[in-house]
Amino acid sequence: MKIVFCAPAIDAQPWVARLAQAIPEAQVWPWSPAIASREADYALVWSPDDAFFAGQHRLRAVFNMGAGVDRLLGLPGLPHEVPLFRLDDAGKAQQMAEYVCHALIDHARHFDGFAAQQRAGLWRELAVEGRTAFPVGVMGLGSIGARVAQAVASFGYPVLGWSRSRKLIAGVESRAGPDEFDAFLHATRVLVCVLPLTAQTDGIVNAASLRKLKAGAYVINVGRSAHVVDADLLAQIEVGHVAGAALDVFDTEPLPGGHVFWRHPNIRVTPHIAANTGLDASIDQITAKIRAIERGEVPSGRVDFGRGY
Amino acid sequence: MKIVFCAPAIDAQPWVARLAQAIPEAQVWPWSPAIASREADYALVWSPDDAFFAGQHRLRAVFNMGAGVDRLLGLPGLPHEVPLFRLDDAGKAQQMAEYVCHALIDHARHFDGFAAQQRAGLWRELAVEGRTAFPVGVMGLGSIGARVAQAVASFGYPVLGWSRSRKLIAGVESRAGPDEFDAFLHATRVLVCVLPLTAQTDGIVNAASLRKLKAGAYVINVGRSAHVVDADLLAQIEVGHVAGAALDVFDTEPLPGGHVFWRHPNIRVTPHIAANTGLDASIDQITAKIRAIERGEVPSGRVDFGRGY
Repeated sequence: MKIVFCAPAIDAQPWVARLAQAIPEAQVWPWSPAIASREADYALVWSPDDAFFAGQHRLRAVFNMGAGVDRLLGLPGLPHEVPLFRLDDAGKAQQMAEYVCHALIDHARHFDGFAAQQRAGLWRELAVEGRTAFPVGVMGLGSIGARVAQAVASFGYPVLGWSRSRKLIAGVESRAGPDEFDAFLHATRVLVCVLPLTAQTDGIVNAASLRKLKAGAYVINVGRSAHVVDADLLAQIEVGHVAGAALDVFDTEPLPGGHVFWRHPNIRVTPHIAANTGLDASIDQITAKIRAIERGEVPSGRVDFGRGY
Repeated sequence: MKIVFCAPAIDAQPWVARLAQAIPEAQVWPWSPAIASREADYALVWSPDDAFFAGQHRLRAVFNMGAGVDRLLGLPGLPHEVPLFRLDDAGKAQQMAEYVCHALIDHARHFDGFAAQQRAGLWRELAVEGRTAFPVGVMGLGSIGARVAQAVASFGYPVLGWSRSRKLIAGVESRAGPDEFDAFLHATRVLVCVLPLTAQTDGIVNAASLRKLKAGAYVINVGRSAHVVDADLLAQIEVGHVAGAALDVFDTEPLPGGHVFWRHPNIRVTPHIAANTGLDASIDQITAKIRAIERGEVPSGRVDFGRGY
């Protein structure tokens, strides 16, 4: 069995070593232009080189090192006849749950305000609204969104979820499809985006949707930057309908030095760290998927090219 | 039935009104020196006036508006023959769980660092150790500590608990009593204090115990300030064994202006806001306890004067 690794932004060495260890019968190598014509059975990729797929003609499956495949699907030369798999979770769901719960509690319990008060040497209690005043709406209820929704619910916040098809998650009121989107927004104060990026979800957090949120809304975006129309978010903060936002993803990364988000008192910027693909969890998952394919099974996480995720 | 309310630091009006509503057959009034001799069947107190108990001779029970009874037990005139009840939770456990999870994630995931980077306009990923590198040790496993431990465990952190008697909590390794305290400390990196303050727990977070924690330790104190020996904590941060602390309680509150904690880069100060007694939850609980006593039952939360909580 032959496995090629092509993820120019990631240090290949630990991945190649761990994968070779996990599947001893496999030859595993990092892709480079010089050996582009060396063909593999399986490919492990993340934003691969444009030339990558041109040299691969006998791939049995492609594994995307993460949940988001929107960039990969835009790549010219991606063979649509080869099964493409997302990593379902790889430890990301738990990290996302941490990020979202931290951002939510930081806002609802005023820990951001207490930090500012500490810098000013100020001891002052800040009035806290109860958790019921902060219904949280999670857009996207895949393996990551479901874990996020469940973590938020465990703290006693009311939680709604919105997804393409209806999902049953304990403690989460599920809304589905375009018809129920407005009802979802009207009932939501803290809007969490964990959607995949598709033609349907591009720009979904815009003036119209933000205006439908409850007053004093808060936006937590750990999906893709294109989900949020930045100017609309800023305008709704300006008029006071939206209280603020915690953003982990940006149109240009690193976020440019002069960008208004850096100094905006109501916007929290983190450098795309909400969840990183964990090496160990990823290797376990890829190994299990390859073994399943070798046994003739179809593993979970297969991307539907028509649906876009 | 007659109920007197004595909590000089708290606005009596909403409490008296809500209690009268919840127990329509009761007369409820706020205590004042002028009517100190007006006797009640039940007393609802929080740091009551020194003269309070001198005028009450027929109390059937005293309710402390919170979990910590150390201040009340030190009050001269507290009648030891009248049953004293703590509020078991009153919404506090969930608030404490929020506080502790937020402080833990803030530290382990470097959100404090990202906030500082944002103020400096700096985009930089910060290396994160995995959750397994942060075993969390919760001291005190009453209704609050148990909820805190369970919330932390739900995020995938290893959790140990230490308490007077062994407790069974799913996902929490339980240690009990003085004999197992060292083993608990040696296995802990993030030390969370939710203990009651007693002669046995006064100063329990000191040089000796801090040194036994894993290197890079972190302290979260939502118990009482007297649990932590401030000078020992500062010294262990100074030598680098302890990375920092999140403190919600202080020997003098408000924390005095010039105090070193205010400006210490490794210490997070919050103004005693980890958990506030929620009016609704408290009233529900007090009502249920009074009804139980009237039926001849013994409600939960009775304070053992010998044990001190």
